[in-house]
Amino acid sequence: MYGRIRQINKAAKTESGPSVAIVGVTGAVGQEFLRVLKERDFPYSNMKFLASARSAGKPVEWDGNSYTIEELTEDSFGGVDIALFSAGGSISKKFAPIASDAGCTVVDNSSAFRMTEGVPLIIPEVNADHLKGHKAGKGGIIANPNCSTIIALMAVTPIHRAAGVKRMVVSTYQAASGAGQAAMDELEQQTREVLDGKPPTQNIFPFQYAFNLFSHNAPMQENGYNEEEMKMVKETHKIWRNPDVAITATCIRVPIMRAHAESINLELDNELSEDDAESILKEAPGVSIINDRAANRFPMPLDASHNDDVYVGRIRRDISRSDCKGLDLFVCGDQIKKGAALNAVQIAELLL
Amino acid sequence: MYGRIRQINKAAKTESGPSVAIVGVTGAVGQEFLRVLKERDFPYSNMKFLASARSAGKPVEWDGNSYTIEELTEDSFGGVDIALFSAGGSISKKFAPIASDAGCTVVDNSSAFRMTEGVPLIIPEVNADHLKGHKAGKGGIIANPNCSTIIALMAVTPIHRAAGVKRMVVSTYQAASGAGQAAMDELEQQTREVLDGKPPTQNIFPFQYAFNLFSHNAPMQENGYNEEEMKMVKETHKIWRNPDVAITATCIRVPIMRAHAESINLELDNELSEDDAESILKEAPGVSIINDRAANRFPMPLDASHNDDVYVGRIRRDISRSDCKGLDLFVCGDQIKKGAALNAVQIAELLL
Repeated sequence: MYGRIRQINKAAKTESGPSVAIVGVTGAVGQEFLRVLKERDFPYSNMKFLASARSAGKPVEWDGNSYTIEELTEDSFGGVDIALFSAGGSISKKFAPIASDAGCTVVDNSSAFRMTEGVPLIIPEVNADHLKGHKAGKGGIIANPNCSTIIALMAVTPIHRAAGVKRMVVSTYQAASGAGQAAMDELEQQTREVLDGKPPTQNIFPFQYAFNLFSHNAPMQENGYNEEEMKMVKETHKIWRNPDVAITATCIRVPIMRAHAESINLELDNELSEDDAESILKEAPGVSIINDRAANRFPMPLDASHNDDVYVGRIRRDISRSDCKGLDLFVCGDQIKKGAALNAVQIAELLL
Repeated sequence: MYGRIRQINKAAKTESGPSVAIVGVTGAVGQEFLRVLKERDFPYSNMKFLASARSAGKPVEWDGNSYTIEELTEDSFGGVDIALFSAGGSISKKFAPIASDAGCTVVDNSSAFRMTEGVPLIIPEVNADHLKGHKAGKGGIIANPNCSTIIALMAVTPIHRAAGVKRMVVSTYQAASGAGQAAMDELEQQTREVLDGKPPTQNIFPFQYAFNLFSHNAPMQENGYNEEEMKMVKETHKIWRNPDVAITATCIRVPIMRAHAESINLELDNELSEDDAESILKEAPGVSIINDRAANRFPMPLDASHNDDVYVGRIRRDISRSDCKGLDLFVCGDQIKKGAALNAVQIAELLL
């Protein structure tokens, strides 16, 4: 009951499709790539699963065929048109340029190249136009933004386009999945242990996570913000091509499995009523509204879990301002899906 | 492992102490009254435990003596100097005035009288001076603020005094305890059920609470804010005697047992460096600092659970502003203790 997994289609194996490689197939996002490619009938002529030497040789059943995981090497990318990377920053740093040089277009889920000049940082619903010129089989690296950034900007960009976002104050409620499958397993194990009155196992996080929460474990910067928070600031500036948007973020991990929530306060350049904001969000691609005040029903992580959309609610005029230039929102999105695998596959679709 | 309960002293039974009544002794806050009175060596000459007819007749062992719970009636308060009420708003509405008329001074934990003119709304560390004239045995009603308000203002008031808080954006991470013992029990039961793959029992909340979070279940207002959020706004105005402070709040329930967390963004009238803010908070009564950037160690609900202090960390200059008039904080406080029972007992101490 960490959310319901829906029925899966088949991917579209076709000779006219690209040759695809998945780098880091054994991780939580890697596994989600497999599901999302099938859900979206992603066309492919050939599929290759790459991972570390430790996982090489293991079998993978996917889309009606049997595969063997191959070891990721410098020679892995000959003839590959698109590679989806999710094996951590250092793997990306080393192998994404090698893949690109071999003519493979890389969609990278790590933070390695996000802020690199010339590397597009893409949320398809937000800034697909920044992809200009990039195509499968032509080389190049495209970066997938940080999950918290994607989930926030899916909801905030339509508002930004309508009324101009001047300043954003964000507090996050982030799921275990952002730290990988091992973190999700640890949360489950710890929860069992705490319920049984046993001391909680702490391998991934240095704190008890079950029935607790803590400041995001990303490295702390000089300015007192952690890297996760600074990603939200810098990536938003790049994605919106607007370094003037003022952003402060506080990123917190909560004992939830796989969907992030974010409480977002916006200061706008121009007046926007809450009704107009809701109408705009209703039309926004990839956004669903759950905003039933009468029933006190708003987005929850379980609504978003295993689903594609970012859910938005608590849409209201900010009463701390006398004008209509303030707005509060609460959003939820699946961290593994729209926050990672789905967004990357959507980018791959744009490259075809 | 929902936090460690510390060693308990004895209360101070003494003929010179006041005659005390606890109304709603069987609830989570009522039970905490019993602990806090002992922890603080609260002086008393006589103790009376009052509850509904359903609980009347049940035995209570407390401070070395055996008591029997008495039914709360209109005649319960003769000769009682101080009554600590925590039995819900409708009980307070009916019985607090009766107690007051009988010469009993009421410290009320419900929201019934918080905004009533002439009823002081007190956080002892913040506005003890508003109690002026009130004394045990003289009648009158003193209101205990809402838990989220208390926890926020313990940290924010010292900053407000130093630099003036102009605007506050708060997002809360609220524990089950705010909805009572039954909610804590349901969270535990649901968590077991979810881990066992069973559908979660939903008696208290209409949603799955285990491994999930949701907008606070307080009734929704016309303006799209729920009552919990509006309490933070209105109670702060009353406690600070300053209706001009601009506040917006988003209140969220997270699957935590008994301590609330709050992410607070402040806009100040005057510049204040983060070092000065930390120094001010270090000196603040009832506040502890956990702000170790090098170790990425900041307040967590488990730090606050069963403890008196409000814990403050993530103290940093708000980078969304070019001046030094913005500050971000993250605070945790035990909802049952400083958010309710402890604050009420501290008020009672001021009445002696």
